[in-house]
Amino acid sequence: MASGGGGVEEVSNKQVILKDYVSGFPKESDMYLNASGRIKLKVPEGSNAVLVKNLYLSCDPYMRPRMKQPIPGNETYIEPFKPGSPIVGNGVAKVLDSGHPDFKKGDLIWGKTGWEEYSLITAVQTLFKIHHTDVPLSYYTGILGMPGMTAYAGFYEICSPKKGERVFISAASGAVGQLVGQFAKLLGCYVVGSAGSKEKVDLLKNKFGFNEAFNYKEEPDLHAALKRYFPEGIDIYFENVGGKMLDAVLLNMRAHGRIAVCGMISQYNLEHPEGVHNLMTVVWKRVRIEGFLVSEYHHLFPKFLEFVLPYIKEGKITYVEDVAEGLESAPAALIGLFTGRNVGKQVVVVARE
Amino acid sequence: MASGGGGVEEVSNKQVILKDYVSGFPKESDMYLNASGRIKLKVPEGSNAVLVKNLYLSCDPYMRPRMKQPIPGNETYIEPFKPGSPIVGNGVAKVLDSGHPDFKKGDLIWGKTGWEEYSLITAVQTLFKIHHTDVPLSYYTGILGMPGMTAYAGFYEICSPKKGERVFISAASGAVGQLVGQFAKLLGCYVVGSAGSKEKVDLLKNKFGFNEAFNYKEEPDLHAALKRYFPEGIDIYFENVGGKMLDAVLLNMRAHGRIAVCGMISQYNLEHPEGVHNLMTVVWKRVRIEGFLVSEYHHLFPKFLEFVLPYIKEGKITYVEDVAEGLESAPAALIGLFTGRNVGKQVVVVARE
Repeated sequence: MASGGGGVEEVSNKQVILKDYVSGFPKESDMYLNASGRIKLKVPEGSNAVLVKNLYLSCDPYMRPRMKQPIPGNETYIEPFKPGSPIVGNGVAKVLDSGHPDFKKGDLIWGKTGWEEYSLITAVQTLFKIHHTDVPLSYYTGILGMPGMTAYAGFYEICSPKKGERVFISAASGAVGQLVGQFAKLLGCYVVGSAGSKEKVDLLKNKFGFNEAFNYKEEPDLHAALKRYFPEGIDIYFENVGGKMLDAVLLNMRAHGRIAVCGMISQYNLEHPEGVHNLMTVVWKRVRIEGFLVSEYHHLFPKFLEFVLPYIKEGKITYVEDVAEGLESAPAALIGLFTGRNVGKQVVVVARE
Repeated sequence: MASGGGGVEEVSNKQVILKDYVSGFPKESDMYLNASGRIKLKVPEGSNAVLVKNLYLSCDPYMRPRMKQPIPGNETYIEPFKPGSPIVGNGVAKVLDSGHPDFKKGDLIWGKTGWEEYSLITAVQTLFKIHHTDVPLSYYTGILGMPGMTAYAGFYEICSPKKGERVFISAASGAVGQLVGQFAKLLGCYVVGSAGSKEKVDLLKNKFGFNEAFNYKEEPDLHAALKRYFPEGIDIYFENVGGKMLDAVLLNMRAHGRIAVCGMISQYNLEHPEGVHNLMTVVWKRVRIEGFLVSEYHHLFPKFLEFVLPYIKEGKITYVEDVAEGLESAPAALIGLFTGRNVGKQVVVVARE
């Protein structure tokens, strides 16, 4: 095989490396910055990979399960990270060199990339080309990327929403929740969100236009809190957290309610997930609980963009990001998701262009 | 008001009375036989009730939650029983007198009646007239009654079954489970059932034609047991028991699997239901969990009879009943459901005609 890049200069390529599999609560020290990495800014000859410069990296809750040691016979849907290798996640990047006919130098893309300055991406089929650049590029890690598609598919495809229905969203100021709430409001639903600080609750009510919001950390009785906001019960629950909140929601579901299970962030750092005790209410109330993965809805992406871009441009949908500066800030930013440190979608800027 | 029944002789009417609300495991002594009840065998003048002689009474798991003291704000779908009054349940009965144009003396009916020799039924809209009497009448407490409809609606309407899919049924020799398994076999599915004794496991394999069956009490590791019978995972789980079995099933579901939640008999006698820990797999495997109540499928009853009667007559579907003789045996029969004493559908014969 031609080695390619003959005579091409190597450059420095800082990387965020996962040290080892993580159990319990992840720490910054579970990752480290490898400052001595180097890369040739050229696709190997004969390869159909693309070589990109990473601009924005996305911190997402689903990345936590990827840090766990896989248990044979109990695999999740997605490969674990490789200890000793860079973290992998969604990001926005600029193509510097391409061996693939669909991409050329200068193209902007979003999709699976590495936590490093430059990445050689071989799974090119997972990349989306960015055509609309009159919006912040970082949006392609959030509202215009995986979290946006998650909110769209989860709400419209799984929740079967109808105007006037009562919608509850947990982790509601997060990358996905803030959008689900706004989609539900646009449809004419009554929308309540929970979050973990006064600042986030204020955002939900004042910036995203939720009807109501509450700080779950200040509610000793979640069942009572939900009863207060949903005296007639919940039609739709968009589940991001799991555990005690799910248990309380189950007691408050209305007949024929739907629970779209997007994730369960409260459980990801526990060795043994908490038990959910009130599942019998799915019979009494004829509830549907349905899990979904955004990866099965990629075909809806063009339709989604057509739907959401006008709302963004008209200011009818807004999006809040929490931006960490520099690759070295990435480990702390990722871990902050699990303490709720981030306000809005957590992004890491590696480079702005 | 006309009192009716002037000159009509009163007869003795033995009744099974619920003493008080029950917590924990129910005991025979939570009910008592009232031998001094009396009733006039005539509908009060001007009433559109029917007066029936009860023939067969049905013991069903859903009756246990009706014995609980209702918790304000946490109601189940169905009224609790009234302490001091007869137990209420499904039964087969003969009309002795009718104030309702749809029913006349001599008609056979099935539906909600009392645990007593004779009942005055005012909620006549809940009764079904029996038109086919070339099958055992007791079948209208089982295969041709509520459990039959439950199996039919739960399997065909909730499970979205397809030929060749892998189906698991818990409490599989019970009133509902034995039918779901036979429906699934008729459709060309691979069917495995769990039950609580060797006798029941033999029934599943030899009488109902399940591909495999196992005694859950002899499996120290339910996850491993399911893995053994479903090396490639479960497409459809018909859930009758809840608790640990549900947790093990969740770990063994295939992508896009469906769980129809019919009931959770293992939980009904617990003050606090067990926790279910593996719900995150509904995301990884994109599983749908859906509860249902047969009462919402009554409109399908004629279609169901048309479907099932020929199979019964041709011997392609079989049904096993556990018949207790006499009203006085009813409390023990009901409680036997929760220890798994019954083999097949538990019926109580009050009178044979």
